[in-house]
Amino acid sequence: MKTLPEPPAAVPAPADVPLTAEELQLGARNHAMPLEMLAIDRSPAGMHYLLIHFDVPVIDAGSWRLRIGGAVRRPLEFTLAQLQAREQRTLAVTLECAGNGRSLLKPRPIGQPWLHGGVGTAEWTGTPLAPLLEEAGVEPDAVDIVFTGADRGIQGGEEQDYARSLPVSEALSPDVLLAYAMNGAPLPPQHGFPVRLVVPGWYGMASVKWLAGIEARTRPFTGFQQIQSYCYKTDETDPGEPVTRMKVRALMVPPGIPDFLTRHRLVDSGPVLLHGRAWSGRAPIQRVQVAVDGVWSDARLDAPEGEFAWRGWSFHWQAEPGEHELMCRAVDALVRIQPQEPEWNWLGMGNNAVQKMAVTVRTAR
Amino acid sequence: MKTLPEPPAAVPAPADVPLTAEELQLGARNHAMPLEMLAIDRSPAGMHYLLIHFDVPVIDAGSWRLRIGGAVRRPLEFTLAQLQAREQRTLAVTLECAGNGRSLLKPRPIGQPWLHGGVGTAEWTGTPLAPLLEEAGVEPDAVDIVFTGADRGIQGGEEQDYARSLPVSEALSPDVLLAYAMNGAPLPPQHGFPVRLVVPGWYGMASVKWLAGIEARTRPFTGFQQIQSYCYKTDETDPGEPVTRMKVRALMVPPGIPDFLTRHRLVDSGPVLLHGRAWSGRAPIQRVQVAVDGVWSDARLDAPEGEFAWRGWSFHWQAEPGEHELMCRAVDALVRIQPQEPEWNWLGMGNNAVQKMAVTVRTAR
Repeated sequence: MKTLPEPPAAVPAPADVPLTAEELQLGARNHAMPLEMLAIDRSPAGMHYLLIHFDVPVIDAGSWRLRIGGAVRRPLEFTLAQLQAREQRTLAVTLECAGNGRSLLKPRPIGQPWLHGGVGTAEWTGTPLAPLLEEAGVEPDAVDIVFTGADRGIQGGEEQDYARSLPVSEALSPDVLLAYAMNGAPLPPQHGFPVRLVVPGWYGMASVKWLAGIEARTRPFTGFQQIQSYCYKTDETDPGEPVTRMKVRALMVPPGIPDFLTRHRLVDSGPVLLHGRAWSGRAPIQRVQVAVDGVWSDARLDAPEGEFAWRGWSFHWQAEPGEHELMCRAVDALVRIQPQEPEWNWLGMGNNAVQKMAVTVRTAR
Repeated sequence: MKTLPEPPAAVPAPADVPLTAEELQLGARNHAMPLEMLAIDRSPAGMHYLLIHFDVPVIDAGSWRLRIGGAVRRPLEFTLAQLQAREQRTLAVTLECAGNGRSLLKPRPIGQPWLHGGVGTAEWTGTPLAPLLEEAGVEPDAVDIVFTGADRGIQGGEEQDYARSLPVSEALSPDVLLAYAMNGAPLPPQHGFPVRLVVPGWYGMASVKWLAGIEARTRPFTGFQQIQSYCYKTDETDPGEPVTRMKVRALMVPPGIPDFLTRHRLVDSGPVLLHGRAWSGRAPIQRVQVAVDGVWSDARLDAPEGEFAWRGWSFHWQAEPGEHELMCRAVDALVRIQPQEPEWNWLGMGNNAVQKMAVTVRTAR
């Protein structure tokens, strides 16, 4: 019998090294939404982005229970059928991984290697959380509501159930759902079956999957996923600022056809409808712009489809033969804009830099 | 206006180079089945593996038509409703990407960077192809039936619709389906909506998605995906042998809990039920074996679940604290066995080498 090894190192430092085997493993498990799927307003399961920290738990819905406890006057427990019998609400919600764009940073934070596709929009059906918290009677001195999932593993050398908290005031928002259906069907295993949290407007880490417990706390929650991960840190020692709501962002459906290996785009000359989606977790989308070879123009915005779902946009481009660079960017009603270049941080969080895409236009035959 | 660039190079040579940006892009678009999902007998959409050569086409089912032509006496055309009104058949089918395991080879062929998870099993519902071919009246001198998808792009410098052929005798098998449903729901866009081919027993490249046309040919089909890609080649100049049916393979659900970054497994000591699935495209699974630290033992086989679906297996392991290596392998009724080490080939096809997994066992608390 050998000695047990040291626990694995915490988050590795960002580096200019080539892609690592660990990043490939994560990239193969978790998946991005291919950007052509921006053409569909509701992302089907299997195209919606997915980040699973540990393993997908296989849960028996019949014996599953949701416990609400901690600093509450009346601890409660619910079966799935009891939750489904309560007030039902369906919301179209855009969820984006806080690490979306991480692998475009230099030096590159080592972790789930997102390029652009860590996003998706689904219709989530469930029951609002706030009335349940009111029934449980959250104590007045509670500060955080902690949501714990059934997925367990080790991260940064620390064994943990995946857990995240919301300030009490955010948890009491009428839009926070305990969701049991995605796009009209029961949650697939990988999206949190039987019940997950959905926190509209926030980056995806807040929407805890495979929900097992909800606990009110009178002291701020200091779990790994709350204060070690999912923070904007300048370096390893910086406690950082917590990641909360999604920054403003626009993405474009790649026009034309791709090369299999390089994904470089080949477009026929003539009129090309550029289109995509834009969202912000802070305020409605106000404007989307497209640049062709550095010259910005306003895109047309589709009608909004709800407060929390991305908004479609389009732009008519008269494509001339040659090499071109396309970009898009969005502005929200708080006049937040996307940076032209990535804003680097230690963990690679919230990179909402402008999307750039090289395309080759050939003379249409 | 700049000069148009040279077309991209054909398949790059295998190399011992670090992972490339192109591999990351492909790995983020396409997705593997996380191995813990071997616990579920039918892979839900989003967990079933997915390889999309070009872009996912967005197809209007109302205007979609399937054309059957070429060397036939009566060219035919079908709407989706017409296909759905015909004989309906549902088959549980294991599909595996021919490139599964590619990135475990050394030197590493550069392409979709599969590790182990390029596999899945779904229930496909559709109408058998053979009666349609019989109605069309395939000419006696036809040799291949070519299936063309609606996905278009460039690969190896060649612009193409994705297309693959089957020998006439294989296409007339009663088990080949024109499938319009996956696990009881309409095909999701990424799995070939509205209709795809499903060729049980064959590697996934034969099951053409987004089917647009079926054509009988009196000369062997020489499309890119038929003779350039999806061949067992010894080097770039070797025409190679075509990839056809799936080789025998067993995979294991990783026991215990994972480390987020390394995916290394931590297992509590005591009784551990190791389990997984095994399949072969050539013959029924006859035997599965598990090795603990190099000592092989027979696993228990679950009852078969149809001719074309993987078969469950399990093995009781008494885990002792320390470092261990687990392996599994299967044997089919043709007494095909899995190689202990990968059988290298130029394009990284059909790597069914034995799965090996390092685990750390700690004393159960």
